[in-house]
Formats: sequence, structure tokens, C-alpha cells
Amino acid sequence: MDVDKQLFEVFAFHGALLLVKTCIMSFLTARQRFAKNIFISSEDRLNKKTKIGTGLNDDIERVRRAHQNDIENIFPFLTLGFLYLFTNPALSTATTVFRIFSGARIAHSIVYLLEVPQPARVIAFMIGNLANVFLGFQVLTFFKNSM
Amino acid sequence: MDVDKQLFEVFAFHGALLLVKTCIMSFLTARQRFAKNIFISSEDRLNKKTKIGTGLNDDIERVRRAHQNDIENIFPFLTLGFLYLFTNPALSTATTVFRIFSGARIAHSIVYLLEVPQPARVIAFMIGNLANVFLGFQVLTFFKNSM
Amino acid sequence: MDVDKQLFEVFAFHGALLLVKTCIMSFLTARQRFAKNIFISSEDRLNKKTKIGTGLNDDIERVRRAHQNDIENIFPFLTLGFLYLFTNPALSTATTVFRIFSGARIAHSIVYLLEVPQPARVIAFMIGNLANVFLGFQVLTFFKNSM
Repeated sequence: MDVDKQLFEVFAFHGALLLVKTCIMSFLTARQRFAKNIFISSEDRLNKKTKIGTGLNDDIERVRRAHQNDIENIFPFLTLGFLYLFTNPALSTATTVFRIFSGARIAHSIVYLLEVPQPARVIAFMIGNLANVFLGFQVLTFFKNSM
Repeated sequence: MDVDKQLFEVFAFHGALLLVKTCIMSFLTARQRFAKNIFISSEDRLNKKTKIGTGLNDDIERVRRAHQNDIENIFPFLTLGFLYLFTNPALSTATTVFRIFSGARIAHSIVYLLEVPQPARVIAFMIGNLANVFLGFQVLTFFKNSM
Repeated sequence: MDVDKQLFEVFAFHGALLLVKTCIMSFLTARQRFAKNIFISSEDRLNKKTKIGTGLNDDIERVRRAHQNDIENIFPFLTLGFLYLFTNPALSTATTVFRIFSGARIAHSIVYLLEVPQPARVIAFMIGNLANVFLGFQVLTFFKNSM
């Protein structure tokens, strides 16, 4: 029960890349909060002009939605991609799928934050989601006798 | 430091199954958004009748809540179940716990989306959460000298 | 492609500890919902006085925000910490980073739920997030030829 070293390394690189990208979303949210002076909890009040609450400013909520979309797509990829390593995939196939997924998710963040017109975001989202479904079915098919 | 092959395969199957189920929630949300013509970001406006915002329609929010509940329960299971493989569990015990968790989470989605009366949802939720806590304590007990 | 046994065990302990802590947030939310008699879905109505909705009570939303912050920080740590094990880190360095991360995230929950004045929460948050970025860059640097 071992995994090809090179295969694992490609996965490790893309997994870390996607997570660093996701963690940056927290900083972008914080930057918008300070810029707009709108925070989320009562003890965050910096001065009398500070507003407290969610949904008050779309520039803040936009970053939060992009972040949430990362959670819904990148986190599943991390497990599906890892399990996929154990299904004896060709290195070239796996590398291609991982690169497509990384590219789609980085594009998704840029498109969302820069408000690029649709269907840019829906395409980036669909590519990532279909990559996840592809990985999921590869794993399910390979391990189907272990239900 | 190796894991029983059969044990890993059972985990891989259930992990992929739960993640494919979770990814389907994204498509169900999109389907509701198109059906209700209510989208989340300003650039999603299809025509003048399109509404933009969150919390405007309970059929959409219901899918999103079910999805969020998957994130809160299935993602922890993926790591806890994986770490549990290294605690030398009996194959039959591990298989039973994984099947119970998968069953509870699939039931949770069905019950939530079909609005089955309570306590159906709270029972499905509790079974999944208790399975996670069980796995967590098994791992903590086994590795307690590695704090 | 193997990982030092002791290194893995330290990771396993902290991973399980952080996830058990995260799962407890679900129970704390439920406790607040019953205390305030405010639930999230129409079928949760216990009696005529039960309110249905989100954002109606800050004590409930506070637990949910703390939970969401765990999702945004602890889940990335689980993959980044795991991949970091394969970069041949010194056991003492890895143990220190894992302990700092666990400490910061447990402190974050306590500070958030007890409404400790700022900057307590922002410091706990930053320590955890910087630990994640540190792990991410270690992994990216180590596997940079596997893009």
C-alpha cells in the first residue's frame, strides 16, 4: 500500500498552493473590514463610528462568499486528490487534473474579487467541481468492493 | 507505520462517497437559484427580474444549511477517520463506524431537503456527531503520550 | 516515502484534539438554541413561542462565528500539517508549531465565547493563521519542483 513518490509530491505542491490561497482570503476580509470600518462582533468596535454586523457591505461579503466557495470546493479536493493517489493513476493524468483544479480555483478567486462578468465565475466553479466529481468517481470505482 | 490495506480501502470508499454527496449540494443550490431566479452576487443578474441577495428564499437557504452542516461534520470525519486507521482498530469495528457515519449523513441530507418532521434530522445529526467524537477519543487515547 | 513515527503521532494527537474541540462547537450552538428557543428551520418549531431564523440572537451567532472561524483555520491546518510531515522537519520544530497552533485555536474559542476584549481574539487568530502560512510555505518550498 504505497504511493508513487513523484505523484505524491505533485499532490503536496498543489494542496499547499490551494490552502495558502485560501488562507489569504482571511487577510483580504480583514483588509476590507478595516477599510470599511465594519466588524463582526461587538467587542471589535474600534470607535463610535465602527459598525457591527454582517451583510452591511457588499465588498466585505464578496470576499467572504469567495472564501466560503473555496471551503466548499478546495477542502473536498484535498481528500479526494489524496485518495486518488492510491488508485494507481498515470502520473500525467493526475498532474493534469491537479493543475486544472488549481488553475480553476485561482481563476475563481480572481474573477470573484474583480467582479468579472458572468459566465466567468460559473465556468471556473464548474471546472473545479467537475474535477472533484471526476476524482470522486475514480476513487469510488477503484474501491467499490470495500463498501 | 503502516495501515492495513483492507482497512484503508473501506475508509477510502466511504470518504469519497461522502464527498461526492457533499459536492452534489452545490448543484442542488444552483438548481434552486435558477428555479427561484435569486442569485448571490450583483454580476449574476440574468435579467431585470433577477433578485440578488441571501436569505430571500427558504428553499435555497435550506440547501445551503444542509451543505454547511455537511462541512461541519463530514470534513472532520475525513481526518478523524484517517487518523483512526493508525490506531490498530478491528476491521469490523472500523467498517461498522464508517457505515453508520455514511448512513447517518446521507439520511441527514434526505431528511433536511425533504423537510421530514423532527426529530429525524436531530437524530441523524447526533449519530454523525457522536461517531466523530468516538473516533476523536480513540485517536486521542491512542496517541495521548504524543501531546 | 515514509514519515517518522514519532512525528506522525504528534500530528495525530493535535489533529484529533483540534477536531474534537471543533465538534464541541456544534453542541454549544445547540445549547444556545434551546436556551433562547430560536431555531434555524421551520420544522424545528417546538411550540408557538419558538422563533425561526438566523441573526436573531447574538449569543447563538457568536458560537456560529467561532465555529466558522475554526473551519477556516483548523481544516487547512489538518492538510498543511500532514503534508509538512513529509518535508523532513525536525521533530522539535514540528512539535513546537503544532503546540502553538493548538494553543492559539483553543485560546481563540475561549476568547470568542467569553467576549474577552480585543486584541485578544485578533492575536489568537493571527498566530493560528501565521502558523498555517508557515506550514504552507515550508511545503511549497520543499515540493517546488513538482508544480
